[in-house]
Amino acid sequence: MSRLLTIVASSLMLFSTAAHAAFEPFQPLPAMPPIPSDNPQTSAKIELGKQLYFDKRLSATYTVSCNGCHNVMSAGDDGKAVSRGALGLKGTRSAPTLYNVAYQTVYFWDGRAASIEDAIKEHLVSPTEMGMKDKRAVVERLWNTADYPQRFADAFGKGVPLSYETIAQALASYIRTLRTPDSDFDRYLRGDKNAISKQAKRGFDEFIEVGCASCHFWVNLSGPVPGLAFQMGEGFYELFPNYPGTKDEARYQLADDIGRYYVTKDETDRRMWRVPVLRNVALTAPYFHNGQVKTLEEAIRVMGTTQLGKTLSREQLADIAAFLHTVSGRFPEQRFPKLPSN
Amino acid sequence: MSRLLTIVASSLMLFSTAAHAAFEPFQPLPAMPPIPSDNPQTSAKIELGKQLYFDKRLSATYTVSCNGCHNVMSAGDDGKAVSRGALGLKGTRSAPTLYNVAYQTVYFWDGRAASIEDAIKEHLVSPTEMGMKDKRAVVERLWNTADYPQRFADAFGKGVPLSYETIAQALASYIRTLRTPDSDFDRYLRGDKNAISKQAKRGFDEFIEVGCASCHFWVNLSGPVPGLAFQMGEGFYELFPNYPGTKDEARYQLADDIGRYYVTKDETDRRMWRVPVLRNVALTAPYFHNGQVKTLEEAIRVMGTTQLGKTLSREQLADIAAFLHTVSGRFPEQRFPKLPSN
Repeated sequence: MSRLLTIVASSLMLFSTAAHAAFEPFQPLPAMPPIPSDNPQTSAKIELGKQLYFDKRLSATYTVSCNGCHNVMSAGDDGKAVSRGALGLKGTRSAPTLYNVAYQTVYFWDGRAASIEDAIKEHLVSPTEMGMKDKRAVVERLWNTADYPQRFADAFGKGVPLSYETIAQALASYIRTLRTPDSDFDRYLRGDKNAISKQAKRGFDEFIEVGCASCHFWVNLSGPVPGLAFQMGEGFYELFPNYPGTKDEARYQLADDIGRYYVTKDETDRRMWRVPVLRNVALTAPYFHNGQVKTLEEAIRVMGTTQLGKTLSREQLADIAAFLHTVSGRFPEQRFPKLPSN
Repeated sequence: MSRLLTIVASSLMLFSTAAHAAFEPFQPLPAMPPIPSDNPQTSAKIELGKQLYFDKRLSATYTVSCNGCHNVMSAGDDGKAVSRGALGLKGTRSAPTLYNVAYQTVYFWDGRAASIEDAIKEHLVSPTEMGMKDKRAVVERLWNTADYPQRFADAFGKGVPLSYETIAQALASYIRTLRTPDSDFDRYLRGDKNAISKQAKRGFDEFIEVGCASCHFWVNLSGPVPGLAFQMGEGFYELFPNYPGTKDEARYQLADDIGRYYVTKDETDRRMWRVPVLRNVALTAPYFHNGQVKTLEEAIRVMGTTQLGKTLSREQLADIAAFLHTVSGRFPEQRFPKLPSN
């Protein structure tokens, strides 16, 4: 329980700090996410990245595209607990939505990638995802496809325009356009007091009071705040195994996957997970790293018992769910890319 | 050989008739295809049909959408010899492009469906395609998905708005928007004599003289002309098994699949196949009903030997291929549909 106390204490610290320094823990989605200086956004890269995003040629068996598991026509995920990759193998963790990941500071459920580019480089050669043999196989396949070499030359210019690096950069450039601004909650934060219902307002208050906001704050309701020195867990939380009922403990199979420990080998990182983005959470069931929780209310209930040691009432669950429905944003209108045919 | 002679003879008859009656065997793609009177186009049906077209919920395992095998971001097909359906089973015939099928008069390689709607009804419950158990399962799945019932009510109004029939109608309405007008060849036919190269013009002449145009004429270069009383094979052709070389004969495995005979049980329909659409043919490799021919030049060569008994020279093959490249049209710009998330 010591970690729980630490989190709650640091949470109070953050919010009291906030009160004094005019720090606002909740923020509307900024118009632009951070853009890395070595991969500035250009329309050529974005368009090329969109083609790659939908092109099954990036998978070993030509059967899976990025969009297969991160469906941007839906809410950016695939609605599955876990997904099956090009080689027919299932992953062990649930594919998250890619909408608004541009505002994240770390990637994967265990935070092992520091950028979208790095995450992509792993996805392409992961046996449970795109399943390509190695980096070279990815580059060679695009090199041998119709006008991709020319498109990369147009987008990246001199040097080595078509490389594993530029493939990741083009895809990341497109993914950074996947943003859902103007949720009811954003409009509420901007001053439109009628943008969310009374129930949603009660839910927002409870979201803070109960303790959800200890981890779920800032622009994506997933902490942490870039550049802020002190914050809880640096965007990771421990999923406690000792919540009520062995049935639940078996169900969520916590023993199978201990998260960030695999990355750091630090004992204190056992069962630590990246705090998931809550934007559009009402649209991205099922929940948790293993996708084993099917409804939003159940996810809130389990979080209450495991993380905060509180049994939330039916009214509290409904109120918090009503609030979370207000963070569904406006999905961008997009035109189909035109993929090479041969 | 008697059928071959019949085709060549009737071909000459058609073209001489054409000369006298001002019948033009080649036509630019009309702005609108035929629309069935019981399924008029509306924007609500088209948009709903587009959602369904991309929605994997229409497959037994939630893994395949129409777009999986008929990729409208590419040339409307999947570039595979044969495709694998939702249940993991491979089909035996190659998925054709859906661009411009609205101008066809029969569907499937053996012509067993008389409308796009009828073809869709079979696709959804085919074990090698969408793999749904039965019609009822399809309807129930959409009935239980988010706002689909409301979307069908909006698109189809009173009566029974969500049914197997209306699912097929919505999808067909969208598919009828998949048209690629304004190819170089269309502009040539409309009078722009410089729209195609000299080589393509030679190829077009050879396409007629050699005999390709006996079957491949009219707006989709796939015959037949709707409403015209006499024409060759009513849009079907016999794929002759007795072309030179047993190696080829084994390769194309003609004995495995005897086409339209399965539909009519008529001995004269053995190895009869629907004449495939040639619009965008340069973009839709591989070729033939079994997808066993990989390049356009090889497809032309095989057609020459098997169907016309002619060994085409390298120059003729290149010229005809150059002509066929001019029938690639302008693909419509499309916006992504927004699929229900839950």
